[in-house]
Amino acid sequence: MRTIDLNCDMGESFGAWKMGQDIAVMPHVSSVNIACGFHAGDPDTMRQTVEAAARHGIPIGAHPSLPDLAGFGRRDMAVSPNEAYALVLYQIGALDAFVRTHRRALFHVKPHGALYNMAARDDTLADAIAAAVRDFDPRLVLVGLADSALTRAGTRAGLRVAHEAFCDRRYQTDGSLVPRRESDAVLSSIDEAVAQALRIAAQGEVVARDGQVITLSAQTLCIHGDKADAAEFARRLRGALEGAGIGVAALSENTWT
Amino acid sequence: MRTIDLNCDMGESFGAWKMGQDIAVMPHVSSVNIACGFHAGDPDTMRQTVEAAARHGIPIGAHPSLPDLAGFGRRDMAVSPNEAYALVLYQIGALDAFVRTHRRALFHVKPHGALYNMAARDDTLADAIAAAVRDFDPRLVLVGLADSALTRAGTRAGLRVAHEAFCDRRYQTDGSLVPRRESDAVLSSIDEAVAQALRIAAQGEVVARDGQVITLSAQTLCIHGDKADAAEFARRLRGALEGAGIGVAALSENTWT
Amino acid sequence: MRTIDLNCDMGESFGAWKMGQDIAVMPHVSSVNIACGFHAGDPDTMRQTVEAAARHGIPIGAHPSLPDLAGFGRRDMAVSPNEAYALVLYQIGALDAFVRTHRRALFHVKPHGALYNMAARDDTLADAIAAAVRDFDPRLVLVGLADSALTRAGTRAGLRVAHEAFCDRRYQTDGSLVPRRESDAVLSSIDEAVAQALRIAAQGEVVARDGQVITLSAQTLCIHGDKADAAEFARRLRGALEGAGIGVAALSENTWT
Amino acid sequence: MRTIDLNCDMGESFGAWKMGQDIAVMPHVSSVNIACGFHAGDPDTMRQTVEAAARHGIPIGAHPSLPDLAGFGRRDMAVSPNEAYALVLYQIGALDAFVRTHRRALFHVKPHGALYNMAARDDTLADAIAAAVRDFDPRLVLVGLADSALTRAGTRAGLRVAHEAFCDRRYQTDGSLVPRRESDAVLSSIDEAVAQALRIAAQGEVVARDGQVITLSAQTLCIHGDKADAAEFARRLRGALEGAGIGVAALSENTWT
Repeated sequence: MRTIDLNCDMGESFGAWKMGQDIAVMPHVSSVNIACGFHAGDPDTMRQTVEAAARHGIPIGAHPSLPDLAGFGRRDMAVSPNEAYALVLYQIGALDAFVRTHRRALFHVKPHGALYNMAARDDTLADAIAAAVRDFDPRLVLVGLADSALTRAGTRAGLRVAHEAFCDRRYQTDGSLVPRRESDAVLSSIDEAVAQALRIAAQGEVVARDGQVITLSAQTLCIHGDKADAAEFARRLRGALEGAGIGVAALSENTWT
Repeated sequence: MRTIDLNCDMGESFGAWKMGQDIAVMPHVSSVNIACGFHAGDPDTMRQTVEAAARHGIPIGAHPSLPDLAGFGRRDMAVSPNEAYALVLYQIGALDAFVRTHRRALFHVKPHGALYNMAARDDTLADAIAAAVRDFDPRLVLVGLADSALTRAGTRAGLRVAHEAFCDRRYQTDGSLVPRRESDAVLSSIDEAVAQALRIAAQGEVVARDGQVITLSAQTLCIHGDKADAAEFARRLRGALEGAGIGVAALSENTWT
Repeated sequence: MRTIDLNCDMGESFGAWKMGQDIAVMPHVSSVNIACGFHAGDPDTMRQTVEAAARHGIPIGAHPSLPDLAGFGRRDMAVSPNEAYALVLYQIGALDAFVRTHRRALFHVKPHGALYNMAARDDTLADAIAAAVRDFDPRLVLVGLADSALTRAGTRAGLRVAHEAFCDRRYQTDGSLVPRRESDAVLSSIDEAVAQALRIAAQGEVVARDGQVITLSAQTLCIHGDKADAAEFARRLRGALEGAGIGVAALSENTWT
Repeated sequence: MRTIDLNCDMGESFGAWKMGQDIAVMPHVSSVNIACGFHAGDPDTMRQTVEAAARHGIPIGAHPSLPDLAGFGRRDMAVSPNEAYALVLYQIGALDAFVRTHRRALFHVKPHGALYNMAARDDTLADAIAAAVRDFDPRLVLVGLADSALTRAGTRAGLRVAHEAFCDRRYQTDGSLVPRRESDAVLSSIDEAVAQALRIAAQGEVVARDGQVITLSAQTLCIHGDKADAAEFARRLRGALEGAGIGVAALSENTWT
């Protein structure tokens, strides 16, 4: 049976502010990316989120970001390669500290927001991030936008990479995402998002904003956990995928062989 | 030959702001405590400081703090035990990420500033810190004020502890430090500080503020690296110690056996 | 007709994180205290909140805090009087910048969270805060816990003060609030809170935690806007007050004459 | 006698970290730009810096920045116009709070670092900043890079603008500064910087990096106060200017008539 990974960003609360339906969504996904304090996720939130993920036995990834709480890590920032290397390494280590208390190991790293998008198109930044991941642990999987500068940098660094696609984000013809500041960046209905995810998983293609069908091969699909209906969406998506003969399963050695 | 460890806080620059004579002091000390981003030490500074310490082959410790950049971690803050546990674990992990890129392991953890002082007198806080250190790696050494709540908590947690004394801080009769806000908190001359350090190392005692001689057994002496003459002080202190037949050497298995 | 002010903390969102029912609550209260960026309230949130309050024509107060985003300003912190003076002045000025773009002036200042509670019992801190308020503008009203060190400091500084009481916080016999970390700190039902508020407004007394009735004279009642039912509570409270012949109205010159 | 303003960025310490020769430089300059907490300048530093400037009777300007302490406000950041408007207004208000305690008024606003450079080339951002300055007080002077998008936006907003030139920064042929990350961004000797400043002040021109002489009309010259020899430089520059018949004097009504 063919399988695909469903991943979800988690631990994006901060202190008194809550975000995401982490506990409700966790049973429906096969991996989680946990915020590391730079765009969200204070240390105690990280502790709780890692504990929940460990309890569910789900593979845990670090979700490092640019240092921008007020902008939720979504604003491009001109960090140097040295700065990017250091801030990614810092955040991976910080999250790993919680993971190892559960006798678990980090499985993957997926940059967040603007760092993810900048690294999808900037080779130098992407190389710095990939180096940080590899220097922490060369067994880590680097998750990036499918067919982007980041996944290419991961391969150059000798890392296993996972190409990610988005269920509810609209694509441009070049395979990049429509920026969030544009009005049609996010698909508006669950039906549309399920349909897009299914087409990516089953046929390896997506309909771009201008109607053109583009090739999009992905090993993992991103679910946004900050929506009220995130758990419902995840449940329906699993149903649709299974109906099409595609299982939801974590990335594993089979993914790369 | 009897030995004692000389430790120094390092990596306390932050972005464009420089602090400390790290490179000048490093050859003269036998261990370093590196700031982890909460009171000082942005990720790129951590990267550089760890690299320098690794090059010198000195044992590296994490120097976690309360989250207070503007106060340099010196202001008491009412963190809960859960918060303290999580913020210490976070910072240990963040620093360790840089250490492991040099195929080294963290050797010890020494809390900074207000966290250090609060933990010296508050058993609950001290237990939370000790638990974080142990949960990260039970082989880590916990460094705390000699005969304080923190060193006792370390022992309770099954950790090896190192009792620390200060060369240039004045003591109160109960073994605590005169708070920094008081005018005579810091010894004013190098001579006084060398004399105090020597008496602690050689005789296990110190003259408290009121003239009383108190017992003070320590395995490690703290040097303050932010002073202009820090390297000069370290050099002279080593000379004085060696003149008294006491070597300067890192903590090692012999320390606890 | 006797009147009392109903105030509510607002603008406590931060970037992507939302908190409070500001827009729903605003029509039901007679004054608002707006967060100034140190515990909540990024600049753009402040802009929007001030704009909404100006549109409703409600008196606007600054709601300054200790610098503690992760702790939502609720953790005691050992700031010096100089630091307290400066951080309160800074935050008042920052909020006032938005207020003046609407050709309005700040009406009052009410410290937030731990700063409020510390200032209720610490004369030196309270004097520093009162000095900041007076130095910004001696016409400002200082809002503090009824009969506390803060209101006394305001009077000493020559400021008009407003004594505040809480609808849904439980009191101790000495007039202080049961700390939030204790399980019975907050009244659990709307009915209890309406009853407590009514008794304070109508009779100037409250039943403390141990059942004792204590005197509590207040010119303003605090509503917590972060609860889902905040607007409903405000609406019911107004009804109850009016039923008892007490109008809800902003503080005005009549309050102090 | 012709005059030109000499301005210097000040108050760029932060907590325990010191930067700049503020007290030494102040007697030699005719205006100061004071950091507002976002790239440097905690509230207590702002208080002290404003007090020193008030004592010297020098015109005081706000020096607002992008929110980036670790990057000292020198990293470009994709803030929206609304965010830029709000963060500039916030910082102006915060600084003004200290200024008014001395019965003084802010005289000007000069953005810092990346915000300054981005606004020199981005009309939308420049308009947002100019609107914030005007909405705070239309009598404020907006200081920007000579002949840049920022000074044009100021004029559009109805503000008086002051064109700024740099004594020790190298220029590109289009009038922009050589970016700091390039090795020849800063003139290396005092002599060169004095010569460049003199040529700008006396002849309204500067030699760009490629040797071309470009027109550069400026009402104010920037001195960098973070260099060890800043006071010495200011003293020598004044001597050189006066030797050429150009006085150093604050901007005044004469500047714009």
